[in-house]
Amino acid sequence: MEVIDQTMLPGAVEVLRLTTVADVVAAIDRLAVRGAPALGVVGGFGVALAHRESAGGPTQLEPLLNDLESARPTAVNLARMVRRVAEFAPQGFEAVLNAAFEVRDEEIAASRGMARRGADLAAQFVDGRPLTVMTICNTGALAAVEGGTALAVAEELHKRGLLAEVVALETRPLLQGARLTAWELAQMDAPHRLIVDSAAASVLASGLIDVVLTGADRIAANADTANKIGTFGLALAAADAGVPFVVVAPESTIDLGTSSGASIPIEDRGAREVVSYPLEGTAPPETKVINPAFDVTRAELITAIVTERRVVDLSGGGTLTGGQDPEPPR
Amino acid sequence: MEVIDQTMLPGAVEVLRLTTVADVVAAIDRLAVRGAPALGVVGGFGVALAHRESAGGPTQLEPLLNDLESARPTAVNLARMVRRVAEFAPQGFEAVLNAAFEVRDEEIAASRGMARRGADLAAQFVDGRPLTVMTICNTGALAAVEGGTALAVAEELHKRGLLAEVVALETRPLLQGARLTAWELAQMDAPHRLIVDSAAASVLASGLIDVVLTGADRIAANADTANKIGTFGLALAAADAGVPFVVVAPESTIDLGTSSGASIPIEDRGAREVVSYPLEGTAPPETKVINPAFDVTRAELITAIVTERRVVDLSGGGTLTGGQDPEPPR
Repeated sequence: MEVIDQTMLPGAVEVLRLTTVADVVAAIDRLAVRGAPALGVVGGFGVALAHRESAGGPTQLEPLLNDLESARPTAVNLARMVRRVAEFAPQGFEAVLNAAFEVRDEEIAASRGMARRGADLAAQFVDGRPLTVMTICNTGALAAVEGGTALAVAEELHKRGLLAEVVALETRPLLQGARLTAWELAQMDAPHRLIVDSAAASVLASGLIDVVLTGADRIAANADTANKIGTFGLALAAADAGVPFVVVAPESTIDLGTSSGASIPIEDRGAREVVSYPLEGTAPPETKVINPAFDVTRAELITAIVTERRVVDLSGGGTLTGGQDPEPPR
Repeated sequence: MEVIDQTMLPGAVEVLRLTTVADVVAAIDRLAVRGAPALGVVGGFGVALAHRESAGGPTQLEPLLNDLESARPTAVNLARMVRRVAEFAPQGFEAVLNAAFEVRDEEIAASRGMARRGADLAAQFVDGRPLTVMTICNTGALAAVEGGTALAVAEELHKRGLLAEVVALETRPLLQGARLTAWELAQMDAPHRLIVDSAAASVLASGLIDVVLTGADRIAANADTANKIGTFGLALAAADAGVPFVVVAPESTIDLGTSSGASIPIEDRGAREVVSYPLEGTAPPETKVINPAFDVTRAELITAIVTERRVVDLSGGGTLTGGQDPEPPR
């Protein structure tokens, strides 16, 4: 199996050859390949590698399948496609390989369906004028096989002449937005600017954004949606700003067996990513940005203001000119 | 004037000697010195340098004062203290220097008052048990002269045996949380973990945090508060989680001449910070972290889910099992 090593982007486009299950698990673990649809497809072909390594013996096969499906716990596509393709194991390697190709072809077709439906929906929000789209993480072709999910919608809008701009969150800790999304948008010649994740709320409040489009790693039966860290805060900020928040995902990401978000396992990835950075120059250097150094928090969101002279209890109706708690400083 | 070069932390503690107004402006511009109270104090002493350079002549002095007060536009302390100290210019260099020392001493005293009042208030939220505090950017001694603002409250809680833990946001783009706050917390031997900014909403929703403490760069008359980019989104997430959100700032940060947040100028700092990182290893390497790779967005925050088969209109009462828009994919 050949995949682009996503950890090397945007500096270099390098292709990895994965020839064993251990190769596949390692590539998934270090995020050389990522994105829910792509993980499903890689998992499917991984089963073919597992079948070959185990010579088709069920007792040898099962531990390899476990390794594959547990390489990342949150995205449902990986485990689901591993199990779907593995059902063909008793019919031999060719049947397994065919099932894996079927998964791949379905994901490519799904991407086209999402792009069209998502673009139709987004155009409705603004009566057909060009849209400014905000997005998090990477949900383009790199995260799928072709097209993608949320970014496929932006690409479709661009093809229709309806994309004003994409505002991409850099997406710490691994910077998929800066490294992958900014790169893919440059490849498709789509106007875009990059922001740090924490600038999203004030950019939304400024009125610049028409719609937020995100992918999903797992959608529970009640529509609670697990996605890249930061998506939840982005949704709160979109709701506050009155901006539609749209999740774009293949049906294979919907997990009706998980009742709500509380049951979705969330991977914790340890310290290294947080105390360091994946690469030196992280976005294409010519990338345009929005980089406000500060934002404004509305008074209604503040419980109290503490100064050296007083505590102004805003939640209890206090005001700055009211001059509460006039005790002198000690 | 001697200041710690904050751009070199946590790797090295280097002291800068600022001997001209141009030195001061450059140090402020590249954030070698930052933090609203510290900017006020540095601005005050900067007037003494300006007075010496201009030999006390008002026409020579004024352009230097303009350079100083416009070095950063958002924090009100800088311009305010420059103008306050400059009033003494006609009385000679000694009077100017004394006024600058007075500003410094007032900021130190203010820090003690904020620490005590803030700790008293925070303790009330939890009936006196140890608290877990979330904070953004750096608001400790580095941002002031001694003590600080929000982090001075955490330090005071720690001294009282009432600090369970500080959860610090790394604070992109310049990583004041990772580089400065984690370093200061380690210096004061206070338990702490670091998170990427976008993890704040889900950490708040998890119930871990008792209070969010932030500083401020300018507080408008209606209590709208400008602070480090990301503070607004943090306040939205705190409100959603029912966690008190407390701003800790000296009275000198309150600007009754600014009616609301809409009138506060927000500095835009350009592209370089967003497409790269300030340092290689950005937090002290032994720093503990919380690093969830994903979060869950509640269904009520999602407008629609788009798959290759359907658009589920959640805002219009649609459900995943309802199977809307059953048109086959094209």
